[in-house]
Amino acid sequence: MAHTEAPRPSVSDSGRGENRTHWRLVDISEPRTIADLGEFGLIRRIIAALPPADSAVVGPGDDAAVLACPDGQVVASTDLLIENRHFRRDWSTANDIGHKAAARNFADIVAMGAHPRSLLVGLAVPPELELSWLDSLLAGFAEECAEVGAEVVGGDVSAADSVLLAVTALGDLAGRPPVRMSGARPGNVVAITGRLGWAAAGYAVLSRGFRSPVQVVNAHRRPEPPYSEGIRAAELGATAMTDVSDGLVVDLGHLAEASGVRIDLRRDALEPAAKLRDVSSALNTDPMMWVLGGGDDYALVATFPNETRLPDSWQVVGMVNEGSGVRVDGLRWAHAGHQHFR
Amino acid sequence: MAHTEAPRPSVSDSGRGENRTHWRLVDISEPRTIADLGEFGLIRRIIAALPPADSAVVGPGDDAAVLACPDGQVVASTDLLIENRHFRRDWSTANDIGHKAAARNFADIVAMGAHPRSLLVGLAVPPELELSWLDSLLAGFAEECAEVGAEVVGGDVSAADSVLLAVTALGDLAGRPPVRMSGARPGNVVAITGRLGWAAAGYAVLSRGFRSPVQVVNAHRRPEPPYSEGIRAAELGATAMTDVSDGLVVDLGHLAEASGVRIDLRRDALEPAAKLRDVSSALNTDPMMWVLGGGDDYALVATFPNETRLPDSWQVVGMVNEGSGVRVDGLRWAHAGHQHFR
Repeated sequence: MAHTEAPRPSVSDSGRGENRTHWRLVDISEPRTIADLGEFGLIRRIIAALPPADSAVVGPGDDAAVLACPDGQVVASTDLLIENRHFRRDWSTANDIGHKAAARNFADIVAMGAHPRSLLVGLAVPPELELSWLDSLLAGFAEECAEVGAEVVGGDVSAADSVLLAVTALGDLAGRPPVRMSGARPGNVVAITGRLGWAAAGYAVLSRGFRSPVQVVNAHRRPEPPYSEGIRAAELGATAMTDVSDGLVVDLGHLAEASGVRIDLRRDALEPAAKLRDVSSALNTDPMMWVLGGGDDYALVATFPNETRLPDSWQVVGMVNEGSGVRVDGLRWAHAGHQHFR
Repeated sequence: MAHTEAPRPSVSDSGRGENRTHWRLVDISEPRTIADLGEFGLIRRIIAALPPADSAVVGPGDDAAVLACPDGQVVASTDLLIENRHFRRDWSTANDIGHKAAARNFADIVAMGAHPRSLLVGLAVPPELELSWLDSLLAGFAEECAEVGAEVVGGDVSAADSVLLAVTALGDLAGRPPVRMSGARPGNVVAITGRLGWAAAGYAVLSRGFRSPVQVVNAHRRPEPPYSEGIRAAELGATAMTDVSDGLVVDLGHLAEASGVRIDLRRDALEPAAKLRDVSSALNTDPMMWVLGGGDDYALVATFPNETRLPDSWQVVGMVNEGSGVRVDGLRWAHAGHQHFR
């Protein structure tokens, strides 16, 4: 399916500070964009670009995937990522976007105390999208899958005006009961693992047109959820757990509501890291807004029986009490996390 | 989250053939659009609108759903539906769109010989979308789920410029092996169940600005895949199966490629129904284009050992032979099915 375009003008820098327009020969037998591949060529390229789904009973290419569920149950979560709402192609590389799209979904699986095993990737892209962008996106998916021990087992493709990803992750509880949001009980401690506020600080930096400091910008571009800590929390006897995707206070609010309890956070246990304080003072903002209201780092927050001996990776930040809602040092926090539709 | 708009002008028909503009008081405490609800209000409304997911170990509202897989395996398929590519809001009602989005996915599960059990619905909508449209969409999902014995167990919401649905279906093989696309063998018969070409005829009618005949237009708006025939085919010993979503020749082409065989169709076994001939002669087109090239009816096509006694619901339309590709009366069919990215 070669494309037959004429040689295209290409602008190159001569190296002497002078831009010259010249003609460059393009190999017309080599597909360059999604449109050159067509739908089925695209599907073949996706399947070829990803590692084989060895664990699947039926992998990509059939009407549906078939996956083993040795303990007789499966954990399933789905997420939409829409260009210019969840990511920007000028802020993040395709590789970053693939990593993040997988990571968000894996964080939901891990927050149930499960091991992410499989990913279904719905991918809608403009026909004129460069194949190099696609390849980099797929590499991001494959790398994040390798990180957690999961595989892409299926998906769907469509044309669209902008890039859109619909990712479904499936996970394995290995016979454990799921850690739900409804199990927190008065007297439990509240503990977190992973970072809070870094991605929000990165977003703030990028929003103002900056590209550094790289630590916070990269936290926005490519979150690193504490994957192994989800199963660890389940094994430690966590009574409730969720991942922080919309902001600590908002996500704990859902957990408090589901459990019918009040959650009291201690502000001194949530002190922003020095880097966040630096960035916030440069931007003249309050770093606690990022810590308490920022999502997208995919930290895990869980409740445990008071007597649980928590490893160093988990930090106690509050208590579960009778009542409702979330308080910080006894006060309601005014700044909510991210909401769509505003 | 009341909206505080001023009374809006509303045009009503006085009943005497005369349009009068008058002011109408709007109850500002009543949400009218998605934006009035906000993200979490929308999620609550979706959960409330759908029947409870009684079969789920963990249903909607937690980080992920947890589903029972009694036979230790799960079938999973995902599909994107994008406004103005897969559906048009001026051609189909919200209810139709919900039905169709669920049906497409269920057809993929059924084509593996499995029973659809669960649906995850990713829903991106413009904030200004009317809640009545949303409610009608959700009713369509719920009705199609009830038809097949499945439940909506989770999902995701986002704002977007147009409506976009990302649907993942999970299914249950009840201990049977999956019916793959790769099992067709020379000497097998090829048989179909369900309709071919009706949705394509409906699309052709709608594309030319007509709204009738209603039978073909409704076939496009709300396909009726032969759900029960998928498991039946598996029990009858089908060697390969797929659903016709891109067109009979295209979909059988994938099956032939996966199986390493040639498929020979008999044109006389695929004679268009009288209604399709009527529509095609009104539109001055060849109805075989719809029968051989039209997708979106979600018929099932399967291969069976030659000696299989097929029930009346299955019609033999060809044979599996050595070789590759798909022939109709020995000839290649020039018109492919629907492809994106063209």
